[in-house]
Amino acid sequence: MASRPTLVSVAAQLGLSRQTVSNAINAPERVNPETLKRVREVIAASGYRPNAAARQLRTRRSRNLGFRLFPTVDGINGAIMDRFLHSLTENLQLHGYRMTLFAASSDRAEIDSYGELLETADLDGFILTGTHHGDERGRWLMEREVPFVAFGRPWSTDDSGCPYPWVDVDGRAGTAEATADLLGRGHRRIGFLGWPESSEVGANRRSGWEAALSGVLAPGELKSLSVGVPDGIRDGAAGALKLLANGATAIVCASDSLALGASEQLRTASPGVPPAVIGFDDTPVAAAVGMSSVAQPVEEAARHIVKIMRGLLEGPAERSEPAAHVLLAPRLVLRDSGGPLATPIAL
Amino acid sequence: MASRPTLVSVAAQLGLSRQTVSNAINAPERVNPETLKRVREVIAASGYRPNAAARQLRTRRSRNLGFRLFPTVDGINGAIMDRFLHSLTENLQLHGYRMTLFAASSDRAEIDSYGELLETADLDGFILTGTHHGDERGRWLMEREVPFVAFGRPWSTDDSGCPYPWVDVDGRAGTAEATADLLGRGHRRIGFLGWPESSEVGANRRSGWEAALSGVLAPGELKSLSVGVPDGIRDGAAGALKLLANGATAIVCASDSLALGASEQLRTASPGVPPAVIGFDDTPVAAAVGMSSVAQPVEEAARHIVKIMRGLLEGPAERSEPAAHVLLAPRLVLRDSGGPLATPIAL
Repeated sequence: MASRPTLVSVAAQLGLSRQTVSNAINAPERVNPETLKRVREVIAASGYRPNAAARQLRTRRSRNLGFRLFPTVDGINGAIMDRFLHSLTENLQLHGYRMTLFAASSDRAEIDSYGELLETADLDGFILTGTHHGDERGRWLMEREVPFVAFGRPWSTDDSGCPYPWVDVDGRAGTAEATADLLGRGHRRIGFLGWPESSEVGANRRSGWEAALSGVLAPGELKSLSVGVPDGIRDGAAGALKLLANGATAIVCASDSLALGASEQLRTASPGVPPAVIGFDDTPVAAAVGMSSVAQPVEEAARHIVKIMRGLLEGPAERSEPAAHVLLAPRLVLRDSGGPLATPIAL
Repeated sequence: MASRPTLVSVAAQLGLSRQTVSNAINAPERVNPETLKRVREVIAASGYRPNAAARQLRTRRSRNLGFRLFPTVDGINGAIMDRFLHSLTENLQLHGYRMTLFAASSDRAEIDSYGELLETADLDGFILTGTHHGDERGRWLMEREVPFVAFGRPWSTDDSGCPYPWVDVDGRAGTAEATADLLGRGHRRIGFLGWPESSEVGANRRSGWEAALSGVLAPGELKSLSVGVPDGIRDGAAGALKLLANGATAIVCASDSLALGASEQLRTASPGVPPAVIGFDDTPVAAAVGMSSVAQPVEEAARHIVKIMRGLLEGPAERSEPAAHVLLAPRLVLRDSGGPLATPIAL
């Protein structure tokens, strides 16, 4: 067994007690200056690095950040957050940071975990995901002056005036581009298949579709061409059926699993015609089945988050500039389903 | 701002110096017994919990485990390890443990990270994945008496005699069951589409297919019906083409991405016939396209790993029983591709 220098081996080498060496590291004022000099020389020569916990007492820096890992609810849509996690870990590693994962069943449980982790794991800060209107997590952390960056807007009335830093992807721009693409292919009655009204992310994605169609369809038509369902392939198929009944010829979706269900429905309605459906998140499933989708630049988001976090932790303690807010543009990935239609879908 | 009791507030309340309160916690022998009693009473009443780093110096337990997160190489096959990560995090949380993620570009870099993490993050142990023959990580950790559990066998000549604990899934049993299922549906010339010889996991999955067909096909036939390619949909399609040329009517695959490529190829060869292809890992993509696949019980694996790790960390220091080795049975998930064929695939 390779022997790494330890407190005990340094003490043995010097013929001193373990406590004296410990004091030399942690409470030098208690140690005779001559002894202190000898201990420091041996420590420097041996390559001994004082125990991390002992060093943390002095530096108060763990270079470790907390991250709540949400449960796998949907193997399809969860892929985007897993990609984000991989990117975040790799980017943090480049700068000597690590991430501690924890699970929590609610925002309240997450806040309880913050308290516990700050006590027991000496984390430097947190990276938040799953932000929503009325989110209490940001306020809790701000009140305790704990550094954090959110992946996701606060969805308040004034996101740009938000006192804490966030990085997000402009979902509205993504669905607007998807809708514009379908308009360019001759579709007019383009439906939106999203989540119930309570989802701010869903409302934001819906707003891009609505903006692209304002001037094309009347408000009443828009209303009949927008459906909100929970999520998943089955819900997507059910929602698409309503949109088809209301005359939709193409559908922009808030997620790839909704889009998979919608594609199935359109394929059944018009066999042999590539379904004019565009999903969201460009998951591996979308690529595998040849479905167009809006891709979120999660790697870029991770880079921005790490950069902002490093500024908070390594920059000057006194700062006057406002919190950083970064809104990234998504990218429309066109596949079969976005290609020109052989014939318009029959209604 | 809510004020949490701190060393400073406890000291102020008692009219003592911060150093005296710190000594009462960390070096009680240096404090006057009467003072010590007063400090302890106030600490108990205030709910003050000494700083984590200070407590770690005494308990030497961080309840934090290290985990190397591999990069996302394939959005399809990576899903299984991400599911494992979620399960592991949730199971650890139940028992008050957390996990610190780090990235590493090689086993050597992973070992370097172990050293650094043990110094700087006071981890209690590690959970290893991606084990392979000649793996140096286990030996390094054993030599330093660092607790760890591997998800994956050591792939040595004597896995059951391995001195450290591992949990794995019996891939051989999974491909044997898949092959038996295809035999039951009337197929005889069943091909195996796996990875190059260097992969122990691939060789293990191949051996299940081979065992199920011994007595059905001659050794020479078996040789011509087994192909090894890197991985991915494109490689799967190319490999399947060779197998079809050698007379295969059905294909058992080492991964879902290989199986997706193979399915495409069989669908082209025999339009309208559900391809007799069985994948491995039961990824969301397999479910989405209706492809049969062998499912690994990763949630069960995570539970076993947490249980074994808790035994190592919380059990008696002196132990006589051998290291735990758990081999879990996978489960064949049948979908369209496993259903009865309308007609045998034309060759």
